[in-house]
Amino acid sequence: MELVKVALDAMGGDNAPGAIVHGAIEAVKAREELFVYLVGQTEAIKAELNKYSGYDEKRVEIVEAPDIITNDEAPVDAIRHKDNSSVVKALYLVKNGQADAIVSAGSTGALLVGGQLIIGRIKGVRRSPLAPLIPTLDGVSLLLDCGANVDAKAVDLVQFAKMGSIYMENIMGVKNPKIGLVNIGVEEEKGNSLVKETYPMLKNSNDINFIGSVESREIPYGAADVIVTEAFVGNVIIKLYEGVAGALLKRVKEGFKSTPVSIMGAALAKPALKKTLKGFSIKEYGGAPMLGLKALVVKSHGNSDYVEIKNSLIQCIDFKKQRINEKIEENISANSEVSK
Amino acid sequence: MELVKVALDAMGGDNAPGAIVHGAIEAVKAREELFVYLVGQTEAIKAELNKYSGYDEKRVEIVEAPDIITNDEAPVDAIRHKDNSSVVKALYLVKNGQADAIVSAGSTGALLVGGQLIIGRIKGVRRSPLAPLIPTLDGVSLLLDCGANVDAKAVDLVQFAKMGSIYMENIMGVKNPKIGLVNIGVEEEKGNSLVKETYPMLKNSNDINFIGSVESREIPYGAADVIVTEAFVGNVIIKLYEGVAGALLKRVKEGFKSTPVSIMGAALAKPALKKTLKGFSIKEYGGAPMLGLKALVVKSHGNSDYVEIKNSLIQCIDFKKQRINEKIEENISANSEVSK
Repeated sequence: MELVKVALDAMGGDNAPGAIVHGAIEAVKAREELFVYLVGQTEAIKAELNKYSGYDEKRVEIVEAPDIITNDEAPVDAIRHKDNSSVVKALYLVKNGQADAIVSAGSTGALLVGGQLIIGRIKGVRRSPLAPLIPTLDGVSLLLDCGANVDAKAVDLVQFAKMGSIYMENIMGVKNPKIGLVNIGVEEEKGNSLVKETYPMLKNSNDINFIGSVESREIPYGAADVIVTEAFVGNVIIKLYEGVAGALLKRVKEGFKSTPVSIMGAALAKPALKKTLKGFSIKEYGGAPMLGLKALVVKSHGNSDYVEIKNSLIQCIDFKKQRINEKIEENISANSEVSK
Repeated sequence: MELVKVALDAMGGDNAPGAIVHGAIEAVKAREELFVYLVGQTEAIKAELNKYSGYDEKRVEIVEAPDIITNDEAPVDAIRHKDNSSVVKALYLVKNGQADAIVSAGSTGALLVGGQLIIGRIKGVRRSPLAPLIPTLDGVSLLLDCGANVDAKAVDLVQFAKMGSIYMENIMGVKNPKIGLVNIGVEEEKGNSLVKETYPMLKNSNDINFIGSVESREIPYGAADVIVTEAFVGNVIIKLYEGVAGALLKRVKEGFKSTPVSIMGAALAKPALKKTLKGFSIKEYGGAPMLGLKALVVKSHGNSDYVEIKNSLIQCIDFKKQRINEKIEENISANSEVSK
């Protein structure tokens, strides 16, 4: 059996290295084809590893990296100069072919920059979008780009749509995924200049199931499987999703706590409520892939717990088995006239 | 006492003319300085008026307008050709000086176009933003631009910030309102090219209290009193606000209904919950003004009830009394080097 090898940034994220190492152990136990490099400070990682037993130790290996890149550092500088940081070491394991993919819960900026500079883009891919899954009443949608590639062009958005379609079909099992373009109205003539230029190009793309414009109001109801937009808007959407949900649930909690009767009511209603709200958490769906790079780069949330790390690692197995990158490369080179 | 005269589109909105006429009656009863032109189909309006008594009939006047502009019509065409529509007639009452302001719950597009074409902008104002109030855990924030002026420039955003500041200070009574620029990070160097160009211009504006970039995640928590962005992003924000809140509350309701115990709990908790959630409804705060026009144009929600119409009419009184337009004109002409 061929192993899928993942370089895991053991020092990235609010709960590192504890939750990271824990997630690795659980993932290795769950999937026998997984091999994990734990990249970071050897002593700290060892201390965590000692807490676990009953896993296949041959599929876990520590790679020493004394430095850490924090969220406060300028990403480009940090990637260029901190050669001994856990994330740079992990990226080089992938670049050198020792690992198939990288997972990090550390600085998003550093990972985005490092992914492009060290691992590099697939030939023909113009930009590499960060593509988180967002919860909807219907299941999940893939939102891309949520990264830092602001001021994208129409040809970039068309590539995002195609890569997103391949991902949703092969990783999430959605047949013929519906592709929607974020817009401020549903009519074809609506929108800013970027959207007006992108719309007909998506409409004329025969290899995707473009359903037209999607207003942001409809996104939480599952309007499309793949939601295409440029990074500034995508970033606003994903953070506002989190913000509105957080603020509203705070108000619900305040309501529950406000009177003796409401406290009693809340106690009765909570178990059922937890169930229906569970699927509507932005953190439920593991890390976000950066698509279009020569290897898979997965960004887990900064406050990832071990379950999210485990899911992010398992995602790497599916990504390789489903040959996502080969499919992206075939599609993009077949459409190379678009990507010029 | 000087009357404030408002041209009210009696035929606009899902609940017209019933809720519109009802709102006018309530507003006229509440404020003795208010005069309302009910613009629309005379017979239909009369039938509604006959339901009410005890109001000052001298301050309500019907203006016949047989046509209606629907949401399905192309706004520019409709405004240019439907001279006998309620909204065009109402706009001309303002243009001709018979009315001080217009309120409509009809087609947003038609009102935005008509406001610019028929009423026109204040000298020096480059664009007229639609500026709804959005609920936050802290109170409300003014979000602008949410209109259809896509592809705005940095100088436009600076004017939005100034007009928004004047509005929040004088209408909402917020001293020295905090102005935030929507961005994808809080650092000054973050953002797309529009934001990077706008940021230093806002920073150098001495007549506003610019607090820097605001990430969308923080908006629902009341990060700033005035949230500045271009219309595409503003439109995405306001519609997503509505969408996420709606979807989440749907899940809460499903949870409440899911078991006999949760139904009992919900019955106990609901009264308290209604109270804490009340302030967090996007519809609570009446119509959205279009700022920078020669007279006040207020867009009420399509599904406005009579309370929202009443509040929109009363808003027109404050707008005139506080001399908002004079203040905007003074500010913009004092900064005319910016608006070139």
